[in-house]
Amino acid sequence: MTDTTALIGVDWGSSNLRVLRIGEGGAVLDRRADPRGAVGLEPGDFPGVLNRVAGDWLVDGAPVLICGMAGARQGWVEAPYRPCPTAVADVAAGLVRPDPARPVAIVPGVAFSPGGVLMDVMRGEETQTFGVAVDGLVVAPGTHSKWITVEAGRIVAIRTFMTGELFAAVRTATLLGVGMSAPGQDPDAFRRGVERGLEDRSLSAALFSVRVEGLAGRLEPGGAADYLSGLLIGAEIAGQDPDRLSGPLTLIGEAALSARYEEALEMAGGPCVRVADVEQATAAGLWRIWEATQ
Amino acid sequence: MTDTTALIGVDWGSSNLRVLRIGEGGAVLDRRADPRGAVGLEPGDFPGVLNRVAGDWLVDGAPVLICGMAGARQGWVEAPYRPCPTAVADVAAGLVRPDPARPVAIVPGVAFSPGGVLMDVMRGEETQTFGVAVDGLVVAPGTHSKWITVEAGRIVAIRTFMTGELFAAVRTATLLGVGMSAPGQDPDAFRRGVERGLEDRSLSAALFSVRVEGLAGRLEPGGAADYLSGLLIGAEIAGQDPDRLSGPLTLIGEAALSARYEEALEMAGGPCVRVADVEQATAAGLWRIWEATQ
Repeated sequence: MTDTTALIGVDWGSSNLRVLRIGEGGAVLDRRADPRGAVGLEPGDFPGVLNRVAGDWLVDGAPVLICGMAGARQGWVEAPYRPCPTAVADVAAGLVRPDPARPVAIVPGVAFSPGGVLMDVMRGEETQTFGVAVDGLVVAPGTHSKWITVEAGRIVAIRTFMTGELFAAVRTATLLGVGMSAPGQDPDAFRRGVERGLEDRSLSAALFSVRVEGLAGRLEPGGAADYLSGLLIGAEIAGQDPDRLSGPLTLIGEAALSARYEEALEMAGGPCVRVADVEQATAAGLWRIWEATQ
Repeated sequence: MTDTTALIGVDWGSSNLRVLRIGEGGAVLDRRADPRGAVGLEPGDFPGVLNRVAGDWLVDGAPVLICGMAGARQGWVEAPYRPCPTAVADVAAGLVRPDPARPVAIVPGVAFSPGGVLMDVMRGEETQTFGVAVDGLVVAPGTHSKWITVEAGRIVAIRTFMTGELFAAVRTATLLGVGMSAPGQDPDAFRRGVERGLEDRSLSAALFSVRVEGLAGRLEPGGAADYLSGLLIGAEIAGQDPDRLSGPLTLIGEAALSARYEEALEMAGGPCVRVADVEQATAAGLWRIWEATQ
C-alpha cells in the first residue's frame, strides 16, 4: 500500500459488493469488487465475505464504514432508516455497529415520510448524495432509479423509479424481449424511445409500441433494446414535476447510463446537468459521514 | 352431437387454443381447449394440432373459421391486418384460406394507422368486438389489454396496454415478486392499488410503492399481488382520455378479471359497464363474419 489507509469504505448493494481503500480526505487508494451482494446472504455471512474480499486491508485496524443493503432488515444488521430532512450528521448519528469486537459501522438508509406517511426509502444513495455535496436534484439511475431533492445540504425528498428493473423484466419475461439484443447499438432508436416515453403518459400502452414499431418496420431488431431503454428513461423524466427540472441536477451513475440520462434530460428541455463518478461520490460520502462521528 | 354443426370456430391465441362447435345463428354447442397456442408452432404444425384437438368435428365438412394469432406473420399463414375503420364485411373480405383442399379460413387482424402511421394492432379481439355488436368502448382485458373504439358498427381505433404481461413480468422477474402469492385474496389491497394507479401518473414510480407499502406495514404479504393488479389496472384506466370514459363500455374477458376491471372503472367514476362472455362473443363474431361471406 503506497498511501496510509484512513478508512475502508464498503458499498454493499443488492447484487454486488464494492470495497474501497480510502485515504485521508476521501481519496480512493484502491478498490475491490465482488458479486456477493446482500441479497442471498444470511446475516452471519457478511463478516466472512468481507474478510475474503478485503481481509488484507482490515489487518491494520482501519475503521470500516458500510453503506447500502448490508443495513437492510434482511442484511448484516438492520440500520433503521433516518427520516427526511436528513443531514450528514443525522446519518452519522444513526450508525449501527454489528460487532463490538470490530471497528465496523453500517450507515442507515433514509426514509421519506411526508406527514408521517412512509412514501419512499433508499440505502446507499444517501451516502453518494452527501459525497457530491450539492443542492438541487441528485439522480442515481440504475435498477431502482432514485431522484433525491437536496436543500441546504439536507436530503428532503426521495422518489424511486423502477426503471432498470423494468427494463430487465421486460427483456427477460415478456414477448417484447424475444430476440432483443443488448442496448447501445442504435442511438436513433434510443432517441425515438425517449420521445415516446416523454409524450405517452401511459407506460403500459407505450411499451406495446416496441412491438408496433417493429411490425411497422420503423425499428430494426438490433435497436429494440435502445428504444425500450429510451422509452423507460423518457417515462421516468416525464414523471417529474416540470418545475423541478429547471434547477441544477447531478447524475451519479455508471458512465454509459449517465450519458443516456444526460441525453434524455436534454431532449426534455431539462436542467443543467453535472455528471459525478459513483466511486468518488461513495468514497467522499463515507468520508464525510465518518468525519462527522469524530 | 345433438345439434347440427354450422361452423367450427377457432380462437388461436398466443398461448392457448379454443375450438367451438357452433350451431346456426352462432350458438355454442360444444367446446374444446388446448395449451398449444400459436407461439411455438411452426406453420406446418397448425393443421395437425387442429386435427388432434377437434378432428372428430371436422369430418362432416363444416366450414372452419379461425381468429387470433394463427393469422400472424409467424402463424399458420399470414392474414394481413385490415385498416381501421373496419366493419364485419371488411374483415370478411380479408379472409385468408391456408389450404385449398380444406374449408378453412383465417380472420385478419385489424390495424390502427391514423394518418397512415401504424400505431396499434390486434388479432382475435376484432372478432369478439363484432360479436358483442355494440358501439362505444369495448375493452378486452388480458395479457395485452385492448381498448377498442366502435362507431356505427365499425372499429375506428385501438389502443393496447401490456397490463397482464407486465403483471406477470413483475411477479416473475423483479424483487417485488419475491414471495408474492396469487391475486384474489385481499379486495382492500386491490382497491388501494387501483387508487394509487389512478393517481400516480408515473407507473415505474408507482410500482415501487408495492415495496414501500410492505415496508410500512400497510400491505400484508398476501395482498401484494392484489395491490399490484389494482395498480396496473388503475394505471390502464388513468391512461384513457376522461371524455372517452363517459360513454358506454363493454368488457369482454374472463369473469374474475372483468369483475376487477368493473370495480376499478367504478372507482374511476367511469362509464356504464356491460360485461360480455368471451366465448359467446367469439362465437357470435365468427358467425357474423361467416355470414358476411355467404
